Amino acid sequence: MASSLSLVLVLVLATSFFCVGCLAQLEQVGTRGIHPQQLQRHPLRFREKCRYRRIDTLEPSRRVEAEAGITEIWDENEEQFVCAGAAAVRHVIRPRGLFLPAFTNGSGLQGVVIPGCPETYESGEGSGSRFRGESGRGEGRDRHQKVRNVREGDVLALPAGVTHWIYNRGQSDLVLVSLIFTSNEANQLDNSVRQFFLAGNSQQRQQQQPAGGQQESFGNLLSGFGANILADSFNVDPGLAQRLRGEVDNRGHIVEVRDELQIVAPHYEGGEEMEREWERERETEGRRGWSNGLEETICTLRLRENIDDPKRADFYNPRGGRIATLNSFKLPILRHLQLSAERGILYSDAITAPHYYSNSHGVIYSLRGRARVQIVSDSGEAVFDGELREGQLVVVPQTFAVLKKAGSEGFEWICFRTNDLAMVSPLAGRLSVIRGLPEDVLANAYDMSREESRMIKYGREEVAVFSPGLRD
Amino acid sequence: MASSLSLVLVLVLATSFFCVGCLAQLEQVGTRGIHPQQLQRHPLRFREKCRYRRIDTLEPSRRVEAEAGITEIWDENEEQFVCAGAAAVRHVIRPRGLFLPAFTNGSGLQGVVIPGCPETYESGEGSGSRFRGESGRGEGRDRHQKVRNVREGDVLALPAGVTHWIYNRGQSDLVLVSLIFTSNEANQLDNSVRQFFLAGNSQQRQQQQPAGGQQESFGNLLSGFGANILADSFNVDPGLAQRLRGEVDNRGHIVEVRDELQIVAPHYEGGEEMEREWERERETEGRRGWSNGLEETICTLRLRENIDDPKRADFYNPRGGRIATLNSFKLPILRHLQLSAERGILYSDAITAPHYYSNSHGVIYSLRGRARVQIVSDSGEAVFDGELREGQLVVVPQTFAVLKKAGSEGFEWICFRTNDLAMVSPLAGRLSVIRGLPEDVLANAYDMSREESRMIKYGREEVAVFSPGLRD
Amino acid sequence: MASSLSLVLVLVLATSFFCVGCLAQLEQVGTRGIHPQQLQRHPLRFREKCRYRRIDTLEPSRRVEAEAGITEIWDENEEQFVCAGAAAVRHVIRPRGLFLPAFTNGSGLQGVVIPGCPETYESGEGSGSRFRGESGRGEGRDRHQKVRNVREGDVLALPAGVTHWIYNRGQSDLVLVSLIFTSNEANQLDNSVRQFFLAGNSQQRQQQQPAGGQQESFGNLLSGFGANILADSFNVDPGLAQRLRGEVDNRGHIVEVRDELQIVAPHYEGGEEMEREWERERETEGRRGWSNGLEETICTLRLRENIDDPKRADFYNPRGGRIATLNSFKLPILRHLQLSAERGILYSDAITAPHYYSNSHGVIYSLRGRARVQIVSDSGEAVFDGELREGQLVVVPQTFAVLKKAGSEGFEWICFRTNDLAMVSPLAGRLSVIRGLPEDVLANAYDMSREESRMIKYGREEVAVFSPGLRD
Repeated sequence: MASSLSLVLVLVLATSFFCVGCLAQLEQVGTRGIHPQQLQRHPLRFREKCRYRRIDTLEPSRRVEAEAGITEIWDENEEQFVCAGAAAVRHVIRPRGLFLPAFTNGSGLQGVVIPGCPETYESGEGSGSRFRGESGRGEGRDRHQKVRNVREGDVLALPAGVTHWIYNRGQSDLVLVSLIFTSNEANQLDNSVRQFFLAGNSQQRQQQQPAGGQQESFGNLLSGFGANILADSFNVDPGLAQRLRGEVDNRGHIVEVRDELQIVAPHYEGGEEMEREWERERETEGRRGWSNGLEETICTLRLRENIDDPKRADFYNPRGGRIATLNSFKLPILRHLQLSAERGILYSDAITAPHYYSNSHGVIYSLRGRARVQIVSDSGEAVFDGELREGQLVVVPQTFAVLKKAGSEGFEWICFRTNDLAMVSPLAGRLSVIRGLPEDVLANAYDMSREESRMIKYGREEVAVFSPGLRD
Repeated sequence: MASSLSLVLVLVLATSFFCVGCLAQLEQVGTRGIHPQQLQRHPLRFREKCRYRRIDTLEPSRRVEAEAGITEIWDENEEQFVCAGAAAVRHVIRPRGLFLPAFTNGSGLQGVVIPGCPETYESGEGSGSRFRGESGRGEGRDRHQKVRNVREGDVLALPAGVTHWIYNRGQSDLVLVSLIFTSNEANQLDNSVRQFFLAGNSQQRQQQQPAGGQQESFGNLLSGFGANILADSFNVDPGLAQRLRGEVDNRGHIVEVRDELQIVAPHYEGGEEMEREWERERETEGRRGWSNGLEETICTLRLRENIDDPKRADFYNPRGGRIATLNSFKLPILRHLQLSAERGILYSDAITAPHYYSNSHGVIYSLRGRARVQIVSDSGEAVFDGELREGQLVVVPQTFAVLKKAGSEGFEWICFRTNDLAMVSPLAGRLSVIRGLPEDVLANAYDMSREESRMIKYGREEVAVFSPGLRD
Repeated sequence: MASSLSLVLVLVLATSFFCVGCLAQLEQVGTRGIHPQQLQRHPLRFREKCRYRRIDTLEPSRRVEAEAGITEIWDENEEQFVCAGAAAVRHVIRPRGLFLPAFTNGSGLQGVVIPGCPETYESGEGSGSRFRGESGRGEGRDRHQKVRNVREGDVLALPAGVTHWIYNRGQSDLVLVSLIFTSNEANQLDNSVRQFFLAGNSQQRQQQQPAGGQQESFGNLLSGFGANILADSFNVDPGLAQRLRGEVDNRGHIVEVRDELQIVAPHYEGGEEMEREWERERETEGRRGWSNGLEETICTLRLRENIDDPKRADFYNPRGGRIATLNSFKLPILRHLQLSAERGILYSDAITAPHYYSNSHGVIYSLRGRARVQIVSDSGEAVFDGELREGQLVVVPQTFAVLKKAGSEGFEWICFRTNDLAMVSPLAGRLSVIRGLPEDVLANAYDMSREESRMIKYGREEVAVFSPGLRD
């Protein structure tokens, strides 16, 4: 049953974090340790100002192939990314593919966007280090941390420095699109994305590179330690320590699992019940509004939320489409990640209200269809006026105005935003800036009659998502 | 009556901000959304270190003229501004001048410093989007957001990304001096000040520029959108949409109002009563000490405080002068702006205690008279030792020591500080650093007798503002 | 008795900070004013990214000599320091040496690491500005702020902008190693360390410099003001004001005290009793877990903690050594400094668990003995693999993995960390990342059998400090 219901397992390792000197307070430390209040500013170093004179749609520029999947990387030196303090990658994990345990220096938000088929998944859980009475090696029962299932439409939060692995249990490719926010306060390094793998081998694969080729690979953190000192550290013989360093491993960062992955965990067979329990937990927290961040430890934090369900849309216009957002009110860990996300669908020819993000940048990734997008700078020039197609990405700088109009086949997107409570200021529609201005100010500002200023103010009663061609 | 009582109307548009997905929580979102805790660090990019070897008084370097006023801009590339992460502008709005709706990427603090004549002003208020039952275009009654009156001595808080307009209802020029703090955590763009106007036209005016001339203009955010898509967005005909783009408008960013501006708002005629109500509200909040930022929504936030009243002085020396400060204890929104202000008056030849700002920079603007100012760096050198005259500005870097001595005609200033709770460490007087050191430490440090160290410690019993020539 | 019991006096001046306009709320302002929530980001300016391709051990590159001591300064332009946003200095204060009153722009953590002999010290205290009834100059009784004694193993917190002085009452040299964290949010200046002395003279000593020599000196903040205006400010005659400017003083920044320093303070003779009172206070706060930062004023803040006592070790392995940490749970002021520290001792050939700091950099200073240290980057390369010897320092970048193995004579170190709740992720041992991964994930990741993956997981039951050669 398990195999037919669940496609992906994601483990975000957390209890392995500890704050020496306060183990008794681990529960508090877990979250508090990554509380933005506590964190230092990291040294940002840029050579020049962000002109944003011209914005382009972007596609991945590099790919890293592995035994059971591919990682595609957008060029993080593109001005759009540098200026937004973010980077983006797309992982394609083939069936039975295991994305090796790794962590990064930036906080990440990962959309599970194009799995092959819509199935139901289970939740598995096991918090190893809390088990008591058992110890020593060779036990029949494995002990490890919480394992989470993901499904299409899930958004996964990946805190900086936290180890995670991903396994595709399904029958078709799993595609994950990730925004990595290196300007997160937790990152004290520079704005380069650094991916630290705990397994794999870079040396071997680097030799396979064709001269002048662009093929890349990821390193293995353990390969940097000497084999003897590693053997001492793990108290194993040097031959086994060599395996940790992965010297003869050339499978890359996504490996194929030989047998079905066995996860020994108490609730592994819980399936839908667990899922429902998750839902309840989610509802409860939703009702509370927002948490102070102390009542949850990072070990048990919710790191996942599904925003694909139409019933969860925040804006719904039967003639235009819908928008659902995920912010730290809904998923509290986002406070620490300083990220939020928006999932939108526009029907044929529908448009979004022209708007600006007043406290964040926006990174729009096109999931399906195409749209005409216009982005306008403070000088009143359109720095982007073009088509955004499936698989492409565009960055909307903070306070720049933006507008999307779906093509005839409609348009779907996910927008990552660099603030956990990103605020939107619409310029048209019922909750717009224009609506808040007195008629006389509008009339004088636009040099028009009071009647005309009323048309401007009250022409659209819709919010956020506008139906096409109303006035015709 | 209204016209004789009120000079200026300022509207800070706020309800147009919303956080999609949590409209029911708008009240919380309003403020919480811009809480510094929540905000990301913006990418700061500088090419070199701040040497502060030599500081100069600065005057505006560029001016942008418009139909009914002028904006003068200090060069934001001056090391003093770059290093303080701030910029400064001065607006002169002529009678009947309307400063068009705009917002900026930095948080701003605006001093209403030189109106032509001392009058009393009224407070107008109207919160449009809360009205119920009415809808559609063409209503006789206008609905818009709160409108505030300002008067001399007012300090206005302008949160980043929040739209505001200003109208001069008086008989003489209105002068506003503004500090824009681009290092505010809310700004994720670079340190350039970006002013986004929602009306006006840049193209037209740019053509009028003489070749090689320095005349500048501001853009119109709406002019970057296509006319047809704009017509769709506002659901008006393309002709009217063209007017939003301001293509044939050459009045600039401050326009002359044709008839007296009609603001349809419930309390518009309230006048002095409203003013008194404001005062009461202010007192109440003052008593509470400081707010947690959640009890006020941005829609109803106090964004204004007058610090001109002698009775409000924090330091008063009948022989020296007085200093009044405005920080986030008094005006809670300043927590989010991360700015505070000080208004000071020195009588003829009086001096301020030598002091340093331990957690902020200071930007001193001279309102009237002149003073000799000395600023000392960590190397013990005077990086500035000169006269500060009316209309000039000087930046005092954090932890650098500063001292002001008024000229014979006295001296008045406003000092903007880049911390909402800027702390001052005086080096002389009753609450000084020197006063806190043991006599023996002073005697050994300055190689003097214990009696001499006592003279140094107890020579001045005054605080902050010193009378001239006491010892003579 | 006093002289035989106490070696060092440190005064951290605090009440001299005030927030104009809210003197009645001084208690709150003191701490709240430097609360990270309130602080602005400072402009960080770097020319290039931090490559960390190669890390080296570092020794001080410059020395500043004075009458009664020496300050040795590590080159703050070293990539390791620039990228960590920190700098380091070492002060050697000879017996009867007085380090002149000074403050810096960065928050500091100072380890009292190598005093000459283990003695007991007294605590002296006197809060001058709270005394009432007395005033005027020439009183027989001195009034000043709290004076603290320090001893070996103490860690001193020095908030940015707060004046402090240090006096060595002992019979042998006092050595202080200081980390100055310029990336602290309180610092709005650039990342250069700026030391502001309130006494001493730079001019005189600069003349003594040999041509081309590297000898340096510190400035005197008061020397930058004119003598007359300084005389006016302190209300003393110009001759005495000249002494404040130190024009004829060539003793440098550490001067020799002529007679024994007399500190007139109520509890100055309290000795061990005071010490015990301090202990009690410390225990009480320890029990409370952590403070909200509002219940203490900066005037009475605990700024000192001893982490040398073996009983206070957080990790103790009788076959390996011990580690004690000091974070903001134990010393709340560290929340504002955004720093923490770790004191470690490894016995002969013992090793630390390989680990990474997930939310901070680490600056390791070797106190005694030597160790082989390996630091590994994200590419899996050892960016450092060498010996760290007494008096040397090495920077471990955030998320880079590190491992230390003591030499035959053992190894002692202090590690400063740029987060007040620095989190450690061990890669081996009982609380490690590897321990949290399911066996099947390990087996597939490292291409090994399930039995082998169990050996990797359960080979070490120790935590943090590992005994040498267990498996032999």
